[in-house]
Amino acid sequence: MTANRQFRLIARPTQRASAANFSFAESPVPAPSAGDALVRVRYLSLDPTNRIWMSDMDQYMPPVELGAVMRGVGIGEIVASNTDKYAVGDIVTGLLGWQDYCLVSETGGVSVLPKGLPISLPVMLNVLGGTGLTAYFGLIDLAKPKAGETLIVSAASGAVGSVVGQIGKSLGLRVIGITGGPEKCRHIVQDLGFDAAVDYRAADWQAQLVAATPDGIDINFENAGGEIMEAVMGRMNLFGRMSLCGMISGYNTGEKMAFDYSPMLMRRLTVRGFIITDFADRFMEGIGALAGMLLAGKIKSNETIAEGLENVPAALNRLFDGDKLGKLMLKVS
Amino acid sequence: MTANRQFRLIARPTQRASAANFSFAESPVPAPSAGDALVRVRYLSLDPTNRIWMSDMDQYMPPVELGAVMRGVGIGEIVASNTDKYAVGDIVTGLLGWQDYCLVSETGGVSVLPKGLPISLPVMLNVLGGTGLTAYFGLIDLAKPKAGETLIVSAASGAVGSVVGQIGKSLGLRVIGITGGPEKCRHIVQDLGFDAAVDYRAADWQAQLVAATPDGIDINFENAGGEIMEAVMGRMNLFGRMSLCGMISGYNTGEKMAFDYSPMLMRRLTVRGFIITDFADRFMEGIGALAGMLLAGKIKSNETIAEGLENVPAALNRLFDGDKLGKLMLKVS
Repeated sequence: MTANRQFRLIARPTQRASAANFSFAESPVPAPSAGDALVRVRYLSLDPTNRIWMSDMDQYMPPVELGAVMRGVGIGEIVASNTDKYAVGDIVTGLLGWQDYCLVSETGGVSVLPKGLPISLPVMLNVLGGTGLTAYFGLIDLAKPKAGETLIVSAASGAVGSVVGQIGKSLGLRVIGITGGPEKCRHIVQDLGFDAAVDYRAADWQAQLVAATPDGIDINFENAGGEIMEAVMGRMNLFGRMSLCGMISGYNTGEKMAFDYSPMLMRRLTVRGFIITDFADRFMEGIGALAGMLLAGKIKSNETIAEGLENVPAALNRLFDGDKLGKLMLKVS
Repeated sequence: MTANRQFRLIARPTQRASAANFSFAESPVPAPSAGDALVRVRYLSLDPTNRIWMSDMDQYMPPVELGAVMRGVGIGEIVASNTDKYAVGDIVTGLLGWQDYCLVSETGGVSVLPKGLPISLPVMLNVLGGTGLTAYFGLIDLAKPKAGETLIVSAASGAVGSVVGQIGKSLGLRVIGITGGPEKCRHIVQDLGFDAAVDYRAADWQAQLVAATPDGIDINFENAGGEIMEAVMGRMNLFGRMSLCGMISGYNTGEKMAFDYSPMLMRRLTVRGFIITDFADRFMEGIGALAGMLLAGKIKSNETIAEGLENVPAALNRLFDGDKLGKLMLKVS
């Protein structure tokens, strides 16, 4: 292949993103200068945070600039190198972007993955990547779970949620997942071992939430935001902990909702927002623990893999439609 | 005096409380049975939480039952005793209620204050009572301040807020107070030593907030709730801490407001609700520290003292009108 196809952000979406927000054009595959290497992108991670990066809302990294290649985490292979840091054949992960090829510098950017593990690239990008690390540190470090406590997680059949619930079960917690539709509810209980599921698309979802949490909730791992977060907050026990990982419900609209946050005071909750990069200096600790759980069968990895770089914008919206199980990614090559 | 005047809650207020929510009637002063003692109420503490207790909202203690004497913290003197636990002349503090006399049991209830301190009863009820303890534990324990950080406190000229700010200054923090009107702004800066004030009654209060926090905010001690809390949250620095002590703005209406809580995630805030009784086993530690600061002149105690038991309901509303400085209390006898 001699062309590098790239998605560049040309207009910030105000509702959901679509191909109209991007240019999609070919340019020559670049040759690495001294100190650089060339990565062939293999898989792109599709995450709610992609949608945040497209906007100019207050966020944890600078928004993607108009005209720039769309930012995205991926996994790829070094195919040409002009530095001793990377060898041809190395598998790397980092911010590779929505493109076929990516130049990386020896002074920054991507990490070389360990060789020889019996773990596929999609699983590397999922449980041993930012997804698994987010679940691990957000649950273990921020919420400090104790066996016997009740944990609830929203977006429970999704990438982070499904790992959070499985780690919770391995720690002896009672685990309830909130997800959309009967099939996903069945999946998290029967396939992943959650104790109960709440179907937020059902008319009686709030009654289901009450029924599933007869002893209240000690830990909330929040991915949803909005009315789901508000309802969960109303079920929290005294001194409950909330790990605030994401609030996907508001990412496409930016609307504020009327929110009763009084339980934060009355129940004396501890609510902690976090972004996985906050734990960058402890990634190796997390990857080790997650690999152990994975190889011991305590975590099942689950990926939904779209194909074809040209399909990235449409594939991303499957996150917001809930049209996938586990980690959503896209196979580029 | 042979009559005991008592306020009993007869109708829960839906907006602000008034005399119409209570019966105010005389009954005979009770004689203490074996194991009991009789307290002559001297001062009643008037606090936003009184308004919460009148409602049946979800709260941290049971609501006051209809027909019961209105709950209130006070300070009083033992005037008759039928137990070795209390001697006539002892000064006690606890939930004495909105009445002239209160029976207390040797098995629970009130604490005897130390004798011989050069500290008046109003100051005992203020800086060395629940007010000072709330400021102390909410700031020191929950927010873990470090010298040089920026602290903001709402309801800054009020009972808790004025102590929070003064403790903050003694720890080397930059301290900004939010309060209502030019006189209170002057008071907290000139009399109490705050670095800056934001007048939330001014049309440009949000611009004042920005101007007063050029380096953002590291710690928020929240007493107000509502749009003030939202605006402060939008100025918080990465990894900022919020001690959630009160949200007085919503107590009279119970209305939910549209609230942008996304900074909790994006700025990775830690938000912790608390009630001072959570620290009951450490009150002596707090009282010791506060007495030290008080006697060293690092904290000025400031009370607004209404008079006459019959005036309690009207006096309480001075909290919500902002019509007082420092700790509001009522002298009963």
